[in-house]
Amino acid sequence: MRINPGFLNLQDRYLFALIGQKVREYKGQHPDQDIISLGIGDVTLPLSPAVVAAMQQAAAEMGRAETFRGYGEEQGYAFLRQAICRYYAQKGVDLLQTEVFVSDGAKSDLGNILDLFAADNTVLIPEPAYPVYVDTNLMAGRKIIFLKGEAQNGFRPLPPAALHADLAYLCSPNNPTGTVYTKDELQSWVDWALRRGAVLLADSAYEAFIQDPELPTSIYQIPGAKECAIEFCSLSKTAGFTGVRCGYTVVPQALVREGVSLNGLWLRRQTTKFNGVSYIVQRGAEAALSPEGMAQNRESIAYYMENARLIASALQELGLWFTGGQNAPYIWLQCPGGMSSWEFFDFLLERCALVGTPGVGFGPSGEGYFRFTAFGRREQLLKAMERLRQLRLSSL
Amino acid sequence: MRINPGFLNLQDRYLFALIGQKVREYKGQHPDQDIISLGIGDVTLPLSPAVVAAMQQAAAEMGRAETFRGYGEEQGYAFLRQAICRYYAQKGVDLLQTEVFVSDGAKSDLGNILDLFAADNTVLIPEPAYPVYVDTNLMAGRKIIFLKGEAQNGFRPLPPAALHADLAYLCSPNNPTGTVYTKDELQSWVDWALRRGAVLLADSAYEAFIQDPELPTSIYQIPGAKECAIEFCSLSKTAGFTGVRCGYTVVPQALVREGVSLNGLWLRRQTTKFNGVSYIVQRGAEAALSPEGMAQNRESIAYYMENARLIASALQELGLWFTGGQNAPYIWLQCPGGMSSWEFFDFLLERCALVGTPGVGFGPSGEGYFRFTAFGRREQLLKAMERLRQLRLSSL
Repeated sequence: MRINPGFLNLQDRYLFALIGQKVREYKGQHPDQDIISLGIGDVTLPLSPAVVAAMQQAAAEMGRAETFRGYGEEQGYAFLRQAICRYYAQKGVDLLQTEVFVSDGAKSDLGNILDLFAADNTVLIPEPAYPVYVDTNLMAGRKIIFLKGEAQNGFRPLPPAALHADLAYLCSPNNPTGTVYTKDELQSWVDWALRRGAVLLADSAYEAFIQDPELPTSIYQIPGAKECAIEFCSLSKTAGFTGVRCGYTVVPQALVREGVSLNGLWLRRQTTKFNGVSYIVQRGAEAALSPEGMAQNRESIAYYMENARLIASALQELGLWFTGGQNAPYIWLQCPGGMSSWEFFDFLLERCALVGTPGVGFGPSGEGYFRFTAFGRREQLLKAMERLRQLRLSSL
Repeated sequence: MRINPGFLNLQDRYLFALIGQKVREYKGQHPDQDIISLGIGDVTLPLSPAVVAAMQQAAAEMGRAETFRGYGEEQGYAFLRQAICRYYAQKGVDLLQTEVFVSDGAKSDLGNILDLFAADNTVLIPEPAYPVYVDTNLMAGRKIIFLKGEAQNGFRPLPPAALHADLAYLCSPNNPTGTVYTKDELQSWVDWALRRGAVLLADSAYEAFIQDPELPTSIYQIPGAKECAIEFCSLSKTAGFTGVRCGYTVVPQALVREGVSLNGLWLRRQTTKFNGVSYIVQRGAEAALSPEGMAQNRESIAYYMENARLIASALQELGLWFTGGQNAPYIWLQCPGGMSSWEFFDFLLERCALVGTPGVGFGPSGEGYFRFTAFGRREQLLKAMERLRQLRLSSL
C-alpha cells in the first residue's frame, strides 16, 4: 500500500497553531490583560430571524410523517437553486437551474472541483492566497506557478500574456488582501483564459461586501466568462453561515473542454461523492436569500463594513499603507518600521495585547504585511484602534 | 487543459434512470394502477422528537448573539465525538475522541478517503457492491479487482490468501445482499489485510439493523482491526438522517503505513478540503445518540425489521432463495424461473405493478438476482406481498 505522495509534500499548518501558542504564552505571563483579536476570519453576528424561523420550521416538517423528506438531489433542492438564480439575476447574470450546485461550503467545493482535472495540469495561483488553493493542489501532485501580488500592482496581479497555465485561481474581493479586481482587470483574466484554454476557479465568497456599484460581484458579469470560469460562492460571510454550512458552485453549460461538458462532469462527481446538503440548512439558505433575509444580511454586512471603515481610518491617521477595507472585510497593511510579519505580530501582542494575522502565512509575497479582519464586535474593535493610536506607529 | 481521464472511463449511471423511465412508461399505459416500490434505499419514518427538538433549539441558539457559533472544528464538535465514543463503548470498542471524524455522510467519506492513497494502489471490491466503491476508484484511475459474491459463498466472499490488494472494501450488513459477515469471517479479512499490509474500508452504514448479538456490529470488535481498518458509519439509516446528513468515520491512531499515521493524513485532508458539519445537524445527531433518541431509533428499526420479516416470510412461502432480511434492511432474491434481473423487473412491473431493483445493477455477479428493501410503509408492503403471493412464482 502506498500513501498518496502529494500528502507527504505538504507543510504542517503552523500559521494559526503558532498564533494560538504565542497568544497562550502571552496570556500565561499577563493573566489580567484583555487580549483583542482582529485575526479571525469568522463572523460574530447571529443568524437573522428569517433564517432561524425557516430552519425550525424545516426541522418540524422532518418530524412529521406527511412532510418528512429523505434523500434530496445531490445538487440541491429546486427551491434553493431557483433562489440562487434569482440572486444572480439581480446582478444581471442569467443562470439555468442546472448550472447551480448547492454544497456544504465553498471550501469543500474549491478542493473537490480538482477531481475533474488531470494531475498533470499546471495551476496558476496569485499569491498571497488562501492556503487551501495551494494545499489541495499539492495533495493532487499538480505543478503550481505563483503570480506575485505586491504593492506595485496593488496586490491585484494580472496574468502575463505569455504565461501558460491550465487552471487559475481568482479571489475577488481577496482574502487576505481585501483588494477587488475591476471589470477591466477581470476581463483581462477572462481573455487570457480563453486564449489559453484555461479554466478560471473564481472564489467569490466575499462578493456581498462589494459596495461600489462599478465593481463586479460575479465573474459572469464579464463577457466570455461562461466559457472559461467556475464560480464558488458561500453564505458563510453573506448571511453568517460559517457554522450552518451552505455554499454553491456555478458551472456554466457553456464550459466545455475536450468536447466534454464540465457541468456534466461536476454533476457526475457530486452524485458519486456527495449526498446533498441538509434539508434544514437548505431551507435556511432559501430564507437568507429571500427579500426579508437579504435585508437582514445587509444590516450585518453594514455593521462589518463600518468596522472595516474604522480600521481603515485609524490606519490612515497613522500613516500606514494598506489595501482593502472598502469593499471587503479584510485590511492588509504594510508593517511599520520595516518589521517582518512575525516581528509586527509580536510587537502588537507585547505592546498592546492585539492579535492579527502575519501576512507571510499566506505566502512569501505576504512577508512584511499583516491582516486585520472586520468581523469582530464594535466595542472591542474601538478599543483595539485606540490602542493602535497610542503606539505612535508612524514614528517607528 | 486536460480532463481527469478517470472520468472518461465512467459508465453512465443508467440503473435508477432506467428504472424511472420504465415506471413512467408503465404509468402512462396504466394510469389507474397503484404502483408499489420496494426499490428505494431511503427511510420513510419521520425523525424522532428528541432530534427535532435538539435541532430547533440549536437553530434558536444561532439566532442569539450570546450563543451564536461560527466555524466549528472540521472534525466535529467534542459533544458529538464523545457521544459517538460512548456509542462504540456500548459495543465493547474503546475509541479516542481524536479517532472519530464527523462528516456529512458515509457516501462523502467513502469517496474522499481515497485522497489518502496513491493512484497506483490496487483495490479489491467484493461484488455485487454499492456502485460508489467502483466509480470513485475509476475516477482516481485505480486498478480494481473484483471478488465474486455468489450463492455458493452465501454472498459473503472471503479474500484468497494469495490475492494481493492494497485497499479492500467491506460492507456488512451488505448493500445490496443483506448478508452479514460473522466474527470468524471478518477475522479472516483482518488477518488477510494485516498479512498484506492492506487497508480495509469497512462500510458499516447498516450496523444498527443487526439483531443477532453474535454478529459483529463494528470491525473493531475483531482483534487486529485497529491496525488495518477504517470504519464508515452513518446516521442515515440508524436515525432516519438521509435528508439531515450526518455520518462519521473512524481512523484509529494505530493505523500506520510507511511510518505515517493515516489518522493524521485524514485530519489534514478534512481540515483542508472540508469545513465541518452544520452545528444544528450535529446537535440533532447528538440527540439521536442519546438514550431517549436511541430508544426512538430502535422503534423505527423494529418497524423496518418487521417489514423485512414480512418480505422474507412471503419469499419463503413462495419457495424463493434469498439472503438478508434478518439483520439487514435488504432482501436479495434469486429471480424465479431462471429469469434475468431485468426480465424479473419487467415481469413484476407488468404483472403486479411492483418495483424493485435489478441485481445486475450492482455488478455482473448480481445477474439473475433482485433486491427488495424494507424501508417502505407497512400498509403498502402488505399489499405488495399479497400481490407477490398471487403470482404463483414457484410454478414459473
